Amino acid sequence: MTTTQIEDIHFALTRLHAMPESGLAPDDVAALLEEMRRFATDIVEPGRLEADRLGARFENGAVTCPPGFRAAYAAWIEGGWQGLAAAEAHGGQGLPFALWCALKEIMTTADMAFTLCPTLTAGAIELLERYATPEQAEKWLPELVSGRWNGTMCLTESQAGSDLAAVRTKAEPLGDGRYALTGQKIFITYGAHDLSANTLHLVLARLPDAPAGSRGISLFAATTLRPDGTPNALRCGGIERKLGIHASPTCIMLFEGAEAELIGEPHRGLPAMFAMMNNARLQVGIEGVAAGARALHLAEAYAAERVQSGQAIASHPDVARMLAEIRAVTLAGRFLALDAAVAADRAKLGDEAAEARLALLTPIVKAWCTDRGVQNASLGVQVHGGMGFVEDTGAAQVLRDSRIAPIYEGTNGIQALDLVTRKLPRDQGAVLRGLLAEARGADARLAPALDALEQATSWILSASAEEAAASATAYLEACGWVLGGALLARAARLDPCYAPIADFYRARLLPRAQAHCAEILGAAELLALLPHRAG
Amino acid sequence: MTTTQIEDIHFALTRLHAMPESGLAPDDVAALLEEMRRFATDIVEPGRLEADRLGARFENGAVTCPPGFRAAYAAWIEGGWQGLAAAEAHGGQGLPFALWCALKEIMTTADMAFTLCPTLTAGAIELLERYATPEQAEKWLPELVSGRWNGTMCLTESQAGSDLAAVRTKAEPLGDGRYALTGQKIFITYGAHDLSANTLHLVLARLPDAPAGSRGISLFAATTLRPDGTPNALRCGGIERKLGIHASPTCIMLFEGAEAELIGEPHRGLPAMFAMMNNARLQVGIEGVAAGARALHLAEAYAAERVQSGQAIASHPDVARMLAEIRAVTLAGRFLALDAAVAADRAKLGDEAAEARLALLTPIVKAWCTDRGVQNASLGVQVHGGMGFVEDTGAAQVLRDSRIAPIYEGTNGIQALDLVTRKLPRDQGAVLRGLLAEARGADARLAPALDALEQATSWILSASAEEAAASATAYLEACGWVLGGALLARAARLDPCYAPIADFYRARLLPRAQAHCAEILGAAELLALLPHRAG
Repeated sequence: MTTTQIEDIHFALTRLHAMPESGLAPDDVAALLEEMRRFATDIVEPGRLEADRLGARFENGAVTCPPGFRAAYAAWIEGGWQGLAAAEAHGGQGLPFALWCALKEIMTTADMAFTLCPTLTAGAIELLERYATPEQAEKWLPELVSGRWNGTMCLTESQAGSDLAAVRTKAEPLGDGRYALTGQKIFITYGAHDLSANTLHLVLARLPDAPAGSRGISLFAATTLRPDGTPNALRCGGIERKLGIHASPTCIMLFEGAEAELIGEPHRGLPAMFAMMNNARLQVGIEGVAAGARALHLAEAYAAERVQSGQAIASHPDVARMLAEIRAVTLAGRFLALDAAVAADRAKLGDEAAEARLALLTPIVKAWCTDRGVQNASLGVQVHGGMGFVEDTGAAQVLRDSRIAPIYEGTNGIQALDLVTRKLPRDQGAVLRGLLAEARGADARLAPALDALEQATSWILSASAEEAAASATAYLEACGWVLGGALLARAARLDPCYAPIADFYRARLLPRAQAHCAEILGAAELLALLPHRAG
Repeated sequence: MTTTQIEDIHFALTRLHAMPESGLAPDDVAALLEEMRRFATDIVEPGRLEADRLGARFENGAVTCPPGFRAAYAAWIEGGWQGLAAAEAHGGQGLPFALWCALKEIMTTADMAFTLCPTLTAGAIELLERYATPEQAEKWLPELVSGRWNGTMCLTESQAGSDLAAVRTKAEPLGDGRYALTGQKIFITYGAHDLSANTLHLVLARLPDAPAGSRGISLFAATTLRPDGTPNALRCGGIERKLGIHASPTCIMLFEGAEAELIGEPHRGLPAMFAMMNNARLQVGIEGVAAGARALHLAEAYAAERVQSGQAIASHPDVARMLAEIRAVTLAGRFLALDAAVAADRAKLGDEAAEARLALLTPIVKAWCTDRGVQNASLGVQVHGGMGFVEDTGAAQVLRDSRIAPIYEGTNGIQALDLVTRKLPRDQGAVLRGLLAEARGADARLAPALDALEQATSWILSASAEEAAASATAYLEACGWVLGGALLARAARLDPCYAPIADFYRARLLPRAQAHCAEILGAAELLALLPHRAG
């Protein structure tokens, strides 16, 4: 964890983006970020290699996390970190969500597998703040906000992944306002473990009278232990053997008539779940940024120490190029994610422009930052040479861990479709064009990339559904490269210390945006060549 | 393993490239490829997941491979596969090297970790065919060519990775023409294991009177068992815990006065080692192609079976895009690697143009194909969604295994430097311009990419050493994308069945070449901005 990372976050929150008034002066923000850094560095980071090697374990029906996680999680509760951005009414500190996002990045840089537990809890808190009855809020939120309990999202079933309309888990009314849940959920992060006192599961299921498809899915809350402390009828059936995040248990959860309460309206579970998707997807995007930050930290340290042909390899031009690429792309991703985070804070205050900005940026942050995270992690391995392939350095762990982020919380392909079929057309590209206008003001040398993206935007808006779907990923990639470059250019105008990295990005990386714009037109050309179009 | 893969290799060997006369008619080549496919599919492929899970083990000083490997290796010897391209004088079949490359791709697609053992042996065979005395050749080559013994390359030491001039292992003359080797080598693939009867190690070391640096390194051969069957003074000190190729033991080898013989001239070890580098690097490039082939095989099967929203996901446009990308890039890589392989066969017959073509293509095949292999493996994971992150499907294994190939046998950064500082300038770009002229004839629609690469080539040839080094990777990338696209275009002209994939590549992927060309000019712009240039 480097102080540069903290300084860059501070710059983004206090100068680059306009975080809403929080009662915190820039110095207070700096002090808080430094406290986060110290917690992450002292408490969480030291155990990451061992935790990865040991992994989570499933034995006799119980899941145990690596031993170091218990102490770290106790310190997490003790520090009151979980409630940073939660409402004060439930024991939170009521600080901006953007500060939570800073904490998320710093913690994930220290250990992604550990940080997933608080991340899921934060999602549950947000959902309950919005949809729980006052009675539900009162009994559950203080437990979650303190971190004493954790939260999970039980969405996926083996036949229902990207297509949640296919959910089959059943909810039978028990007559007393409660329900009995029966079904099997998979890929449940921290569904069972030994860190918290209890777990609140948010579960998508169907009521007996539910219409078929996505309009028949309701949302329920079930706790692992019932209010009287006895076990509920739900259990972990096993955990997955995964590429990465070994210490984060990914559980098969079996609901066997588990007592549950309805959250929100019957049959309105999907809209409730999607209402919190923006923030959840933003969190995942930040995991991509953190992968880059971790990769950079390790690669810079190794390249400064490792001598070949009489020089530290950091000064060999091709290694210097890799380090600069990780640095530039990670910084662009950080600025982009915090742009969205600040927009989320402003949207909560009723700012409609911010709401629209957040909606547009969310799929871009989720997909672009996570794809870049994997790429940066891979570059980090490369900087280490043979040592990067050996697990001892930790560089390989970053690559393994980072690879889940483009997949979960809506695959990156789903994000691209969200961008081209919903977010862009709903205002005919007005928000995006506004962002491009901001970018034009930042640096005239961005013009070729901006022109190409403007043209691609017009094309996507007039394209058929089939054409747009075929070009969706290319379009999202182009947006990510351009908006990231624009934020670096703005940063360089505000503080010349960012000029070299902004120049590097513009001169060496931004041409990729044009390649993706060309690809969009190429995709249309290919569709036109297809036999069924010829007739 | 798909029949398409075999058909594409057959097409490349018999129609796209001009393999020298081998006494095999196209039908014979087809029959031989089919035999390779059957061996790989029936004997090697079934154990790959278990072998990965069990990994190689080091206990009580001995290394054991997963049990399935013993039977597979016995079948490998039994089939006489190791000698496919070795000289008939030593028990080989004397077939073209390009057919060995086909076997390498097919076997690596089945299991990379297993195939590394025969790959290293093939390297040792080639080196001994060229540098061993007749007496050495007679005693060692029949053992290696049969596969009864395996071969290793003992180059790297902890302080000597990319910089082999820093090798410290010592060779003391024993007075009887033999030498005693003392030192520690790391990253020795199959340095110790339980598959073969004996192991011949090719070791870089320094004689007592050696000049400092790269002109003082000699090459030696030491066997694990001495001619009388007693153990030599060398042993495995441990194996690495790695990201991938778990079943391939990566050994620390300790030479403790091991008896050895000098190979070739004293102090001429590095040139001897580099003389076989072209082919070794080509083998690694093929590992990138095989990663794509394996990723495609798994992803296509999964996408055909997995239904979401009422359709197999293979028909969802963004999944179709990913599958087409893996297919197109893997095919381009295959054609490019076999172009180099056929050039190697022709070069062996004294064809100087082929020799120059091989020299130029080698770094491009090594680096471009292996970077694409990692990218294709990552796309393969993505197609699987959440299941891609779970180890059971094998998709994650492809990504883990593929990640070593951009690192070993000269990192991809070293390949790029080789291209811009040696291979390109030595004929002022004549061979490359010849390849671009071939490409112009294949498809006029390649012109924008060809123009950009011509311009970049002129620029690289006139650039300073510093500028060339800073742009080396971008230039190599551009070459790979363009030459791969040119080969697909030529294939489409020869057989229209390749037209759709060539169109996809040209329309959607080839614009990346132009982005890399723009990056080269951008790199020059950045160097011009540096303070030490301003003065």
